Amino acid sequence: MEQGAPLGVFDSGLGGLTVVRELRRVLPDERIIYLGDTARVPYGTKGPATVVKYALGCSRWLVKREVKAIVIACNTVSAVAPEQLRVELDLPVLGVIEPGARAAVAATRTGRVGVLATSATTASGAYARAVSTMSTRCEVFSQAAPLLVPLAEEGWTDGEVPRLAARRYLEPLARAKVDVVVLGCTHYPLLRTVIEAEARELMGPDVKIVDSASAVAQETHAFLHGRGLAEPPGSSGSLHLAVTDLPKSFGAMARRFLGEEASDVEQVDL
Amino acid sequence: MEQGAPLGVFDSGLGGLTVVRELRRVLPDERIIYLGDTARVPYGTKGPATVVKYALGCSRWLVKREVKAIVIACNTVSAVAPEQLRVELDLPVLGVIEPGARAAVAATRTGRVGVLATSATTASGAYARAVSTMSTRCEVFSQAAPLLVPLAEEGWTDGEVPRLAARRYLEPLARAKVDVVVLGCTHYPLLRTVIEAEARELMGPDVKIVDSASAVAQETHAFLHGRGLAEPPGSSGSLHLAVTDLPKSFGAMARRFLGEEASDVEQVDL
Repeated sequence: MEQGAPLGVFDSGLGGLTVVRELRRVLPDERIIYLGDTARVPYGTKGPATVVKYALGCSRWLVKREVKAIVIACNTVSAVAPEQLRVELDLPVLGVIEPGARAAVAATRTGRVGVLATSATTASGAYARAVSTMSTRCEVFSQAAPLLVPLAEEGWTDGEVPRLAARRYLEPLARAKVDVVVLGCTHYPLLRTVIEAEARELMGPDVKIVDSASAVAQETHAFLHGRGLAEPPGSSGSLHLAVTDLPKSFGAMARRFLGEEASDVEQVDL
Repeated sequence: MEQGAPLGVFDSGLGGLTVVRELRRVLPDERIIYLGDTARVPYGTKGPATVVKYALGCSRWLVKREVKAIVIACNTVSAVAPEQLRVELDLPVLGVIEPGARAAVAATRTGRVGVLATSATTASGAYARAVSTMSTRCEVFSQAAPLLVPLAEEGWTDGEVPRLAARRYLEPLARAKVDVVVLGCTHYPLLRTVIEAEARELMGPDVKIVDSASAVAQETHAFLHGRGLAEPPGSSGSLHLAVTDLPKSFGAMARRFLGEEASDVEQVDL
């Protein structure tokens, strides 16, 4: 795996495109191959063994495309499967949990960090573990928010339903007096406006929202440059999208997540 | 396949247990084997080719268990895949669309029938096709309601969020002046109280709710008795549950769907 090879990115579905959007911004010279496992989305409500199996399937497909490194653009996989992926695959694997945890530790003043995430990520305790290796003064309060993924995938990103759902999930974090809320799922940036408004109302105007998408893009930038794996400026960066199932609404949804046109989507069978 | 063999039932997840509940009530002497494809739930947001592939996987697992007939306890599979299953499998296959359509045709007075269903079922046009073979005076209005499955699976079956979601999905059916609403997904009976209350408010007190679970149980009863495949009274009926992924919350969710204790759940790999 070397400079010149593409960068592989995968997620359970479309949420990881919020990470791709940030990667494209900070690493415009990279050729990115994105795989969304839309035939088996969501991962976040499923058990660890199932998530590991699916993550290995996605990773092996990317390895066949001769990528130089893999970015796991999914908090659930990053929480449950990173060690198995690193053991099974002979190339660098970057997850989203550690960058998000680092950004949260930097942002909190009280040391009380809230995390909204899927059921699987919450059950794994991955954010608490990551934060505990970075700071002894921080405490993590996690809240499973399983309905936010279907809301984002359906495009119900404003109005009463997402507002009330976000409120219900944020209330326990407000009671825990957190001053930072980590969007611990790559789908949640689509609901950021609603989540931020409800968080301010419940926790006060100074509450900070941490989005792991931009944090992981920064760390990927540092990693590729540090290893001499980044493409030189002026390379023709590109994006190739692949999915395991092609829902009708894919184009519109992908555009919303990605912030650019999603053309030439390949459908693959894992 | 003969009398004495078990009856196979499958669904994308737990929703089909609402059908099992009705089957247990009207056919208490049957040995039922239920497979919930919880590792790949939901089906209703996925494309037809993917749904057919998953449905064949579930059916073949039941065939290996030597069932005498298969009840598809899932509207999405019944809408998209029944012909492929009948071609591939050498045994009787009963779906939920036709019984539900028949019950709706019997219930409507104005001939205007509303259907709440998944995106895949709605896109298939299966209810309109089924109704058109039964009545020339009826018109079908379908509304995709993709958030109702995650709401049911999460147990958010009362309160403001399901109420507002149900209202948003029912409004187009109210504008179409339907007098019957078919719960065109086996998860929706869990939200029946909320759906019925909103439907009455929008469409008046005489609106009728049709639940395909009891309709398919009646047709299965008639089919088994008509073919001499039903177990004789006093046989020791039983229920065996299998799933492809075992979420933590399975026991509690299954009890809610099934109305009886869910013990000894087998986890299988398809």
